[in-house]
Amino acid sequence: MAMILVIYAHPYPDRSRAGARLYRALDGLEGTVRHSLYDVYPAFDIDVAREQAQLLEASALVFQHPIFWYSVPGLLKHWMDKVLAPGFAYGGRFALSGKRCLWVPTAGGDDEAYSASGVHERPFSEFIAPVEQLVRFCKMDWQAPFVVGGAHRVSNARLEELAADYRQRVRELAP
Amino acid sequence: MAMILVIYAHPYPDRSRAGARLYRALDGLEGTVRHSLYDVYPAFDIDVAREQAQLLEASALVFQHPIFWYSVPGLLKHWMDKVLAPGFAYGGRFALSGKRCLWVPTAGGDDEAYSASGVHERPFSEFIAPVEQLVRFCKMDWQAPFVVGGAHRVSNARLEELAADYRQRVRELAP
Repeated sequence: MAMILVIYAHPYPDRSRAGARLYRALDGLEGTVRHSLYDVYPAFDIDVAREQAQLLEASALVFQHPIFWYSVPGLLKHWMDKVLAPGFAYGGRFALSGKRCLWVPTAGGDDEAYSASGVHERPFSEFIAPVEQLVRFCKMDWQAPFVVGGAHRVSNARLEELAADYRQRVRELAP
Repeated sequence: MAMILVIYAHPYPDRSRAGARLYRALDGLEGTVRHSLYDVYPAFDIDVAREQAQLLEASALVFQHPIFWYSVPGLLKHWMDKVLAPGFAYGGRFALSGKRCLWVPTAGGDDEAYSASGVHERPFSEFIAPVEQLVRFCKMDWQAPFVVGGAHRVSNARLEELAADYRQRVRELAP
């Protein structure tokens, strides 16, 4: 049976509102396995063999995390460095080839903050390249990312809509 | 006296040629302090107070590292997340404001690999935004980055030139 693996990386899950709500949106979604990196590896001691074995079982992959410094949190970056290694994810073997991959970043800043005149000086789209290219280099099937901006101030009503949309996007990853 | 702090992040320093040669290019450069993150924090247990204190003493900052997945290595990302925290680097206080910051990434791919028709599908310049914007958000003085491409295959003669250029670029960071 198809398995959709959701890699979640939130350094401070207790402080999360939007990210936590989205994560819970996947409760009970059949065929979905959630894997919270900061819970499993608080000391950054990633079990590479276990992670790679789990990836092999997955038919699709989701990366959900808050944006830290315009990028993924440190533990997820470390996971990428260690797990998506040559001989596994590329370089002679492309073990993840063809798997759909959905990126789900939550950003505190809204569209105004992510604009030429905003505090982040650029649209959010200009920060996507490193993650998208990683996915493409591994020959995974890059999906249109599910970007949630203004995460600190999004209304509860809007957040409920987003949670439903997210659940639907993950459901659609099934083959 | 002015102090230039060089933050070095190489996960596998023993395998490095270009990065190691560049790092050694700073031997004996007066007023320069080198700080090798993977040597100091192999278990990722970053001493945030120590790191912040060292940053306060620095008049300029260098980040030198190999490119891993179009970005900084995991430990350096973790360092950024923890050390460049709100209340220190931004958010009420901008402790690094005005300090010059030089980014020195070494990338295995050359210009052909980093092109629309190459394996990385984009010019390297499209991967700069997250690091540049971090530096700018902290109100540091972003310097033209010293990007070394084709690091796996660069000739020894060219590497010596690059080492001399790098030393000069670091020297010029002094006020």
